[in-house]
Amino acid sequence: MSDATRTTTYDNLARFIADAFIACGMPAEDARKAGALMARADLMGKDGHGVFRLPQYVERIRAGGMNLRPEFRMIEERTATALIDGDNGLGHLVMSHATELAMAKAATTGVAWVGARHSNHAGPAALYAMMPLERDMIGIYVAVGSANHLPPWGGTEMLLSTNPIAFAIPAAERPPIVLDMATTVAAYGKVKTAAQRGETMPEGWMIDRQGNPLTDPARAGEGFLLPIGGPKGYGLALVFGILAGTLNGAAFGRDVVDFNADVRSTTNTGHFIIALDIGAFTDPERFKEGIDEVWAEMKSSPLLPGFDEIRLPGEGLARTMAARRRDGILIPAPLQARLAALADELGVAPL
Amino acid sequence: MSDATRTTTYDNLARFIADAFIACGMPAEDARKAGALMARADLMGKDGHGVFRLPQYVERIRAGGMNLRPEFRMIEERTATALIDGDNGLGHLVMSHATELAMAKAATTGVAWVGARHSNHAGPAALYAMMPLERDMIGIYVAVGSANHLPPWGGTEMLLSTNPIAFAIPAAERPPIVLDMATTVAAYGKVKTAAQRGETMPEGWMIDRQGNPLTDPARAGEGFLLPIGGPKGYGLALVFGILAGTLNGAAFGRDVVDFNADVRSTTNTGHFIIALDIGAFTDPERFKEGIDEVWAEMKSSPLLPGFDEIRLPGEGLARTMAARRRDGILIPAPLQARLAALADELGVAPL
Repeated sequence: MSDATRTTTYDNLARFIADAFIACGMPAEDARKAGALMARADLMGKDGHGVFRLPQYVERIRAGGMNLRPEFRMIEERTATALIDGDNGLGHLVMSHATELAMAKAATTGVAWVGARHSNHAGPAALYAMMPLERDMIGIYVAVGSANHLPPWGGTEMLLSTNPIAFAIPAAERPPIVLDMATTVAAYGKVKTAAQRGETMPEGWMIDRQGNPLTDPARAGEGFLLPIGGPKGYGLALVFGILAGTLNGAAFGRDVVDFNADVRSTTNTGHFIIALDIGAFTDPERFKEGIDEVWAEMKSSPLLPGFDEIRLPGEGLARTMAARRRDGILIPAPLQARLAALADELGVAPL
Repeated sequence: MSDATRTTTYDNLARFIADAFIACGMPAEDARKAGALMARADLMGKDGHGVFRLPQYVERIRAGGMNLRPEFRMIEERTATALIDGDNGLGHLVMSHATELAMAKAATTGVAWVGARHSNHAGPAALYAMMPLERDMIGIYVAVGSANHLPPWGGTEMLLSTNPIAFAIPAAERPPIVLDMATTVAAYGKVKTAAQRGETMPEGWMIDRQGNPLTDPARAGEGFLLPIGGPKGYGLALVFGILAGTLNGAAFGRDVVDFNADVRSTTNTGHFIIALDIGAFTDPERFKEGIDEVWAEMKSSPLLPGFDEIRLPGEGLARTMAARRRDGILIPAPLQARLAALADELGVAPL
């Protein structure tokens, strides 16, 4: 990677991540799969969920907090459901396995719901929700977030995470509709970014322990994120946490391990994926043309003052993916330095 | 019903609604089922979605806008999915049928997703999401709302409805967790209530066509509802509309008929229900005890200033149901007058 441009390709990034995991002792096939998924997160523009997380994952592996050679176990199985124990493996491996299983089941049953326990952080939610797209299926993914930043509505103890949800729905000529959202007004990563840039946060992102707006991201530790729609977002975070956590026998509430602060304890992260086969309801081609029409209809709305276009969820993601495939993936200098040091430590070729 | 108290019982209300439908020509068995479901909505405290809607449904039936003798057809079926054509019948009948089917399938497959087209307004979302509870199943229900009140984010044309979602999760000793929410900050019914009471709306419920806050509910026709979390709520309304509408071949976007303004046109309302069998993941009794623990944990959080308790979604609903079972269901005087006039017109015994 040239210092001048600081961009890299998807292939190069995937190779680098795989090499790093192999150097840690991960089997090569798993390492290549993990590298491809993490590099894909960067390609999608999910900068806080791709190679950015590699040093943290390596630190957890070295501290004994993650299993390099997990053996996934089927805990429960019905024709359209499964519960998988991820044996404390990397979340990407657990959830790509779970998603493959969900798609295989849904191809017959029409819909499948596969949950996982004893998993770990798996990167961006859209990564898994989008996998069923190429089989003309709709994907829905939910995770218990890997650190609690949200109190129950009216409270001050952070018992909930931002518990994200992602939906992916295929279109014909247009990009797929991909909604990937935290149940809080801002994801915690946005607060961190504002802090790094020395920016003030808008009112509505966070409040302090007295319930007053908190706009200085350097004071983020003194308050909490606000849920979307007030009690509604709290309700969504609660329900998603129960479905992805409690139902799967995974951590929820006080049991959630802050994966940033503690690299040793088993996180017992829970997630679930739903694959819904469009062909079980209608002709997939006709459906996808219908989604193109939804795109056109939404775009045709007159605009509010201050807006220059109507955007569909997933539009920015598709634009970013196309641009990064063409121009490469920019690695900011501080991350580049961290990855160079990591390469050095692990004795692998640098990015 | 005595004028002094203006309360009635669930049984009396269900009987009255059934009599009204029978007088319109609905088969007695269907009328009794519809009466029970609509009265249950009132018992649940969903005052805008129970007997309050009866005059409107009767008007639609008389105008030829709803089919009194629908024959439900199975359009598509797999082991865990189905798509039902409701033949323009009352939504309550279509969706209770769909929910029964989903539960029967999920008992074997673990999960089932049943969609419906050519349905109609079906009352509160929680009514269907809660049906699977007694079989130790989790229910998830989504509908395309029966009138568009929401533009795409950044636009001014109301192409979307408040498209509600409901989740119901059983507990052991505690009430079930029931989250029933519109994807807008306020449901449109709240705006109507504020208008009736001559109250000002808080900023954040609605904006006008210039994007300015709209707080006078009498001016509601000059603006639109705001989605929860801005673009996030727009994304949820869009995705739910596609899953409940487009996927089922039901109306979505410009095709949605405003059921308040037009009682003649077929609405082609779409909904779907998911039944998820807890036993496919874990022991249901242990799971329900786990939900009791979630209740206790959330309740244990210290409080923000200005709050006197942490509430769980469904807590108010359970309290209301217990109170109304004990004390009866209050029918406000204006509604009482409308129902008395309706009874007179239809020649049925008054409430």
